[in-house]
Amino acid sequence: MAPPALGEFEIIARYFAPLAAREAGALGLLDDAAVVALPPGRSVVVSTDALVASVHFLSDEAADDVAAKTLAVGFSDLAAMGADAVGYTLSLALPRAWSVGCLERWLAGFAAGLGGEQQRLGVSLLGGDTVATPGPLALSITVLGSVESGRALTRAGARPGDRVFVSGTIGDAALGLAVLTGRIEASGPAARDALIRRYRRPAARLALGRRLVGVASAACDVSDGLVADLGHICRASGVSATLEAAAIPLSDAAAAVLAGGSGQLADVVEGGDDYELVFTVPAEHVARLRDIARAADTPVAAIGRIDPEPAEPAAVVRLVDAAGRPMETRRGGYRHF
Amino acid sequence: MAPPALGEFEIIARYFAPLAAREAGALGLLDDAAVVALPPGRSVVVSTDALVASVHFLSDEAADDVAAKTLAVGFSDLAAMGADAVGYTLSLALPRAWSVGCLERWLAGFAAGLGGEQQRLGVSLLGGDTVATPGPLALSITVLGSVESGRALTRAGARPGDRVFVSGTIGDAALGLAVLTGRIEASGPAARDALIRRYRRPAARLALGRRLVGVASAACDVSDGLVADLGHICRASGVSATLEAAAIPLSDAAAAVLAGGSGQLADVVEGGDDYELVFTVPAEHVARLRDIARAADTPVAAIGRIDPEPAEPAAVVRLVDAAGRPMETRRGGYRHF
Repeated sequence: MAPPALGEFEIIARYFAPLAAREAGALGLLDDAAVVALPPGRSVVVSTDALVASVHFLSDEAADDVAAKTLAVGFSDLAAMGADAVGYTLSLALPRAWSVGCLERWLAGFAAGLGGEQQRLGVSLLGGDTVATPGPLALSITVLGSVESGRALTRAGARPGDRVFVSGTIGDAALGLAVLTGRIEASGPAARDALIRRYRRPAARLALGRRLVGVASAACDVSDGLVADLGHICRASGVSATLEAAAIPLSDAAAAVLAGGSGQLADVVEGGDDYELVFTVPAEHVARLRDIARAADTPVAAIGRIDPEPAEPAAVVRLVDAAGRPMETRRGGYRHF
Repeated sequence: MAPPALGEFEIIARYFAPLAAREAGALGLLDDAAVVALPPGRSVVVSTDALVASVHFLSDEAADDVAAKTLAVGFSDLAAMGADAVGYTLSLALPRAWSVGCLERWLAGFAAGLGGEQQRLGVSLLGGDTVATPGPLALSITVLGSVESGRALTRAGARPGDRVFVSGTIGDAALGLAVLTGRIEASGPAARDALIRRYRRPAARLALGRRLVGVASAACDVSDGLVADLGHICRASGVSATLEAAAIPLSDAAAAVLAGGSGQLADVVEGGDDYELVFTVPAEHVARLRDIARAADTPVAAIGRIDPEPAEPAAVVRLVDAAGRPMETRRGGYRHF
């Protein structure tokens, strides 16, 4: 006789209800919907991401890493809008083929990963749905936040003369994935671990994003790759951008990979999954950025400038070397589909 | 050479952006997140549902029916909370195995179904994510609404002496599915079509639900089955219920199936997917219900009463016949997992 499947109600009670315990509006995950009050004068900000095993994450990735990354990826979209994080709902399609023991182990790890990351982000689980699937493990996360009404950062708003900034370091996640899949070699075990960790455990830049409201003219998170995401800003704003390759902030581990020749600049500027913020700041606000970066405890680097709309739509982002000479980019960013 | 896959950006522009055109806060689906203002004094209501082909709907179901039902199922949860509907986000995992032609046909039908149903519901698409999957078609919908702060209907609040009501007719969807899968016979082609249509095209009872705020003491939508969903109310409220089988409102088509002996009462009271509202009303508010039902253009029927908490937790809902004698129920409701 087959072991009894773990029921939906048991899964909710055992693994997910504890993650909703601190938010009264989640109603213990026992009701049809969650109810959340926002402070007066603030609008709801909402974003949804879908992730499928073996497409968006390696199918042998640890459950707690999948959980933490799913949350970070979701809330990164709110960071890019300058929003405060509130909570999230989760859809989980669990493979029917998994044994009860496998399911229990995976859910325990997944819930632990959510718990740790939601504490870092200051959010609660608000609701969700757990279903069985004949296909691979799949997740969908919807994140909720709030922003002062009429003040959300968007991709549209960059103007010629604005400076382009990026938070943290760029390229680590793409290089980390390339290390994991054996395509490139890190310079040593510590560098290897650092790159892989950036791929597995990105940080949503909420502390920076919310402080950029009123300062940045446009923002986007780096999920498709730096060139592609800056391109999103350019197209939404009707401008173009010059990106200085030598100014792009690299971690020591990424710099070593590039110096060693096994990774390339294209991995850095066109790889995705960094979940840093790329944003534009009008000249008159640049001075305030240093204080903001310090208050948010987040490094930022100037990496280029915004130029007028290009005659040739394909050329919205020009990568240049230290002498200002154009460099080739390989492709327009990672396409999900 | 394989035909070029349809890109995510093309899919958004062609099929989904038109569905977000009337909501400025959706930002044309071109930004990281959507921003929606709520009227002052109202809280956000949020709910998420996941659906997988061949698990939650028949895999040969028409795309427009899948779309309309996904929306209705989602907003039914808001109706049960007494919320006004605002909008929704959608995750779509599309099978990699589909040809471009198949994908285009399915997406066109799906978008048409969403368009029709969102007009009926008065909502807009706010955002989402479209990914490829090696598995079956899967969807996740997150619905957003608003309710006067502190006034949401929940499942907890039913008190002994309250009357139990249900909207519309019960059992049609379960009988419709049974007809579709060949398990039972309808009494004729018109009855067959009516039952199948209730399975494929449920209506979210938003007009009724929002008017029940301040009148109903507890509410739930009928998705797991009438007995199971009334049981959810009982357990959340710490009460039990007596359900009068003869008072359960049946459509002519359902009554004919039962009279003909091919369907049973269990299909009606334990089948799911009706998306009607089951709710409890204190005696002093029952008189107002007639006006509310008329204003909402939604029939409601008294089907039982709330009793004190039972000694035996399993017996929260007692089904009785016209003479008040206990009847057997087959099981506790549809388990999703």
